[in-house]
Amino acid sequence: MMRTRPLKVALLGCGVVGSEVARIMTTHAADLAARIGAPVELAGVAVRRPSKVREGIDPELITTDATALVKRGDIDVVVEVIGGVEPARTLITTAFEHGASVVSANKALLAQDGAALHAAAEEHGRDLYYEAAVAGAIPLIRPLRESLAGDKVNRVLGIVNGTTNFILDKMDTSGAGYSEALDEATALGYAEADPTADVEGFDAAAKAAILAGIAFHTRVRLDDVYREGMTEVTAADFASAKRMGCTIKLLAICERAADGGSVTARVHPAMIPLSHPLASVRGAYNAVFVESEAAGQLMFYGPGAGGSPTASAVLGDLVAVCRNRLNDATGPGDSAYTQLPVSSMGEVVTRYHISLDVADKPGVLAQVAAVFAEHGVSIDTVRQQGKDGEASLVVVTHRAPDAALSGTVAALRKLDTVRGVASIMRVEGE
Amino acid sequence: MMRTRPLKVALLGCGVVGSEVARIMTTHAADLAARIGAPVELAGVAVRRPSKVREGIDPELITTDATALVKRGDIDVVVEVIGGVEPARTLITTAFEHGASVVSANKALLAQDGAALHAAAEEHGRDLYYEAAVAGAIPLIRPLRESLAGDKVNRVLGIVNGTTNFILDKMDTSGAGYSEALDEATALGYAEADPTADVEGFDAAAKAAILAGIAFHTRVRLDDVYREGMTEVTAADFASAKRMGCTIKLLAICERAADGGSVTARVHPAMIPLSHPLASVRGAYNAVFVESEAAGQLMFYGPGAGGSPTASAVLGDLVAVCRNRLNDATGPGDSAYTQLPVSSMGEVVTRYHISLDVADKPGVLAQVAAVFAEHGVSIDTVRQQGKDGEASLVVVTHRAPDAALSGTVAALRKLDTVRGVASIMRVEGE
Repeated sequence: MMRTRPLKVALLGCGVVGSEVARIMTTHAADLAARIGAPVELAGVAVRRPSKVREGIDPELITTDATALVKRGDIDVVVEVIGGVEPARTLITTAFEHGASVVSANKALLAQDGAALHAAAEEHGRDLYYEAAVAGAIPLIRPLRESLAGDKVNRVLGIVNGTTNFILDKMDTSGAGYSEALDEATALGYAEADPTADVEGFDAAAKAAILAGIAFHTRVRLDDVYREGMTEVTAADFASAKRMGCTIKLLAICERAADGGSVTARVHPAMIPLSHPLASVRGAYNAVFVESEAAGQLMFYGPGAGGSPTASAVLGDLVAVCRNRLNDATGPGDSAYTQLPVSSMGEVVTRYHISLDVADKPGVLAQVAAVFAEHGVSIDTVRQQGKDGEASLVVVTHRAPDAALSGTVAALRKLDTVRGVASIMRVEGE
Repeated sequence: MMRTRPLKVALLGCGVVGSEVARIMTTHAADLAARIGAPVELAGVAVRRPSKVREGIDPELITTDATALVKRGDIDVVVEVIGGVEPARTLITTAFEHGASVVSANKALLAQDGAALHAAAEEHGRDLYYEAAVAGAIPLIRPLRESLAGDKVNRVLGIVNGTTNFILDKMDTSGAGYSEALDEATALGYAEADPTADVEGFDAAAKAAILAGIAFHTRVRLDDVYREGMTEVTAADFASAKRMGCTIKLLAICERAADGGSVTARVHPAMIPLSHPLASVRGAYNAVFVESEAAGQLMFYGPGAGGSPTASAVLGDLVAVCRNRLNDATGPGDSAYTQLPVSSMGEVVTRYHISLDVADKPGVLAQVAAVFAEHGVSIDTVRQQGKDGEASLVVVTHRAPDAALSGTVAALRKLDTVRGVASIMRVEGE
């Protein structure tokens, strides 16, 4: 039973993702209509550069006045693929005020203002969907919000940035250094001219904030996420990882404390065992590993970025939101019904892999071991290598609070016999 | 804003899955209520053996009269975890007639009567959800039905039976034969006393029918699914697979023809390259690989069976269905809005790996090659091995219709110089 009046969609942004959304809306119109129960019509496209030729889009639909578009009052769904906090935030809020539901791919905005946007959606009885904001095409937000709604998620461990996974995979497989691998990622279009947001972990941190909030039904702000980039990972680190049967990934890790009373969210490079399903995630792919009480270990894998994959996620949301409009209903809203404290990085329990350059003389190991003991950190394994009066000492710890581990490293730096700390890397996924 | 009148749930079946559903409903009542927006109450549990002690379940709730329970009229949601076609089918239909929505984990019933059950749900304005029917805890039905609703799925390739994956993984890693690996699976509780449904592919075929229907928005009946079990896979097949850089998995494969005009669904053992994400799925885990037009390659991984994982999927559906009841709405219904023909196995395009025992004399390869050519099958590689007057010939073909490939094998069997066909295995996932 097909309704004939089409649902009207306003598209904000017509770059790589937006143009693909518009294209699929046209080429797959009949399928979308069948799945929704009514046709969908592109009612307007807000862009910055109206003179640019946009194949397949009626020039009449193009406007530079995004505000007027979302205020029209006849728009059923606004699709926001501009990115960044403003003007996206104001446009989305205005859209709700004028009766539209919103589909967004905006991780930065959702990580910063998810609570306020959800509240605005609820106030106006409209939907806010954002599957595309985390891990591109991979269905992740919906499974966490809906499929696992009857379960208790304890841990989310994800590769959520394709650029850095490409670089690290390149370093792992070719032995290249960071700069060389970054150059290749840039040449192939996997890294932007300014790669800061990716390689320093800002992009992954925004996704970690969103994932932690949904997974634990609580509020996690971007500022709550501990963040370390991966620019200092070296070929030597990969060699060390290999000796341990590990590889190195930039991970977003969201955990519920064992007592359930607090949560943590963090982004940093870490060694993970080759046997872990995340270790074999290659190139620019993303994957997210979820541990829940009843379901056990789940993994979701796929392309984390790109125009088509992101458009797939946007359109899946568009179909759901349009169905809700036809039903005069809304989907699941803000899921943060608890307010758990977010613990600092110092309280996270993890393991360290530490490489030290030390003097090659007797008693050094005893000195070093004493420092670990003073900080209550238990050593799992030690490997010594001597060469030309210099020696290296590789220590892998047992699990301990990060504050104790970083305190240990600070104390080690002060030892006369320790000439330098060559690398520190956390070990995860065991 | 919490509604105080609880939603009433009737549980049909209280075995491994049902008892876990009841347990989680009790222990996680507050979380479920917060996620739904109203408390849920177990209003009755239909069982066959009422005398059995069921910890944590009020004995007052136990009944042997499932029909009376679903007819009560005050039940909001019926959870069916009995399995099998009858009485489950009649109970579900009766539940719709008396105003309840239904959550089911029943793959056999859904594969056989999905269309009629969806029609009954729609007629009465109720929901039919069944995430647990395919691949246990892995969110798969919801992502296919909802997340990919704006995309076009072209292929689904899945390991959807944990028992057979455990057996094949054991054969792969230990070199064990089929019987030995089956014995271990039985001893560890991964295989049932009568393993026929698993090892002959019946279980996987039911799941393939459901997956194909949802993925391609068409009707695929159980009878439409080509099925071959994995009882004839040998240690020698694994050795051959390894030489090709492959392993062997029992795969459920659903494909849309290149011209989009038909679909196929099949279950059989196949060699897949070790580099394919499905190759590293170990033990009793399940994983489903989905290829779609816009999203590209996605994979969903997790435990495919067991009480807790299946209960997680049932409860996720329960939360969604309860939310819909509160909203006086329904979720996505039957998605089969097209009726694409289902092609036979003969029309499927695939590759064969064929091991022949042949006479060790000149001219044999020429004879064999002529048979392939007569059937229009192009050879990719041939490997000859001679030993004591006997020789073996391993042929890997290029892609060809299955009818041409099986015709080739039939003709090869008639050659005087071919003493036997040691094994035939399809090659997938390249």
